Amino acid sequence: MNRQALIAQIKQKKSYLCIGLDTDITKIPAHLLQEEDPVFSFNKQIIDATHDLCVSYKINTAFYEAMGISGWQAMQKTLAYIPENIFTIADAKRGDIGNTSTQYAKAFFEQMNFDSITVAPYMGKDSVKPFLDFTGKWTIVLALTSNEGSFDFQVLESNKQRLFETVLQKVSTWGTPENLMFVVGATKAEQLSEIRQIVPNHFLLIPGVGTQGGSLEEVSKHGMNEDIGILVNVSRQIIYAGNDTDYANKAREEAMSLQLQMANYL
Amino acid sequence: MNRQALIAQIKQKKSYLCIGLDTDITKIPAHLLQEEDPVFSFNKQIIDATHDLCVSYKINTAFYEAMGISGWQAMQKTLAYIPENIFTIADAKRGDIGNTSTQYAKAFFEQMNFDSITVAPYMGKDSVKPFLDFTGKWTIVLALTSNEGSFDFQVLESNKQRLFETVLQKVSTWGTPENLMFVVGATKAEQLSEIRQIVPNHFLLIPGVGTQGGSLEEVSKHGMNEDIGILVNVSRQIIYAGNDTDYANKAREEAMSLQLQMANYL
Repeated sequence: MNRQALIAQIKQKKSYLCIGLDTDITKIPAHLLQEEDPVFSFNKQIIDATHDLCVSYKINTAFYEAMGISGWQAMQKTLAYIPENIFTIADAKRGDIGNTSTQYAKAFFEQMNFDSITVAPYMGKDSVKPFLDFTGKWTIVLALTSNEGSFDFQVLESNKQRLFETVLQKVSTWGTPENLMFVVGATKAEQLSEIRQIVPNHFLLIPGVGTQGGSLEEVSKHGMNEDIGILVNVSRQIIYAGNDTDYANKAREEAMSLQLQMANYL
Repeated sequence: MNRQALIAQIKQKKSYLCIGLDTDITKIPAHLLQEEDPVFSFNKQIIDATHDLCVSYKINTAFYEAMGISGWQAMQKTLAYIPENIFTIADAKRGDIGNTSTQYAKAFFEQMNFDSITVAPYMGKDSVKPFLDFTGKWTIVLALTSNEGSFDFQVLESNKQRLFETVLQKVSTWGTPENLMFVVGATKAEQLSEIRQIVPNHFLLIPGVGTQGGSLEEVSKHGMNEDIGILVNVSRQIIYAGNDTDYANKAREEAMSLQLQMANYL
């Protein structure tokens, strides 16, 4: 999905909501465990109940890898089930030397058909570039993450710039706003205005609203640009809103509440 | 495998060689493509031909993920085929917020039974700690990598310390030399002496000898400590030494040449 199509979807749905399918088999409603593929069954109902309210689904690969082959199958089936007009993110946080990053890109862009993948910047340009080289695909590079550990290295100052700012500045020269986004945690909403000085045009993928404590209002106020330019991810608050047979309805209620707020901020 | 057992293996085999199974189906000898599982068949013969000369195999997960389900199966079969007394590394470069890192740890330590996994440090303590919490397992954190892109962020100076030095210093307080190693590229051999000032006791996993240009002599001279303390990884130079039916013998010749040099440096 290209940038124009993504923006059109956001405007049409009045939503910049990304729903994180961090589906943990130990947390899904008990009645699903009898199904042949409980994780896929869970995701299927979540997608059925929410796809008109969000513009993106983010699949957190860790939860699928933890189940081995059957998890990998559930991930593929889930990806295939997501409607065509929704932007798909492999939240995989990959990154390695060039020839290896190319293999990761093949895994997520060719073997599976994700629109985008999250990538860690630590190994530098030749670890990020192979993802950017895939036409029609997106690379979403970690800049400032939503967790406590973001204070360990991401804010270290060098040449009067914090590491995440240097990451934004350097990495933004490796791609364009048409194929590159950045991860900026919602728990750092007050820094979004500064971040917008460095990357005014790129889309930002913003995790951390909900369970992690970030404010949707704040990130919308400080993060948006003239093309909207943000995708706000919410995972646990939506997918685990209920824990019984009505979990999909509960998820829809949560998603709708967020979408209505977003419509208001747009 | 614990530290003492690893050191004992190194001394017994007079080798600190780790062989990287970066098995690319497009690069293996053509006659194997008729096999049911060409990648596993390739790995099996490499393991048969080299297991007495190395103390570790490193499986680069990207090459397996690029093949989807069948790749994941080939990875599991390869891991199961590696002899008990050899240290296994999932070269996966994972790392995410705490609850997600726990899932990655489950994937590689429980769902599969790797001894260790490589982890990217960018997201800080709560992204690394979940791996360290698995008893009897090892976490191998990227410090200074072997690629060109290592100059983009890893050497940025802050508080008179380069980022990779801060990573070494901070991360070394999160684990112990019994459950934590660091990745230091062989292409930076001259910096190994400085690195040894910061982490005198930890094992270092050293990629970059061979195809990437690092010198075995240099890394051995500057990297070893009194417990030897290094694992030197070689991938392509060994596994693609031949490209015909005799590829396993060619791989053995390469591995033996490296092991003989190592015996000399020990």
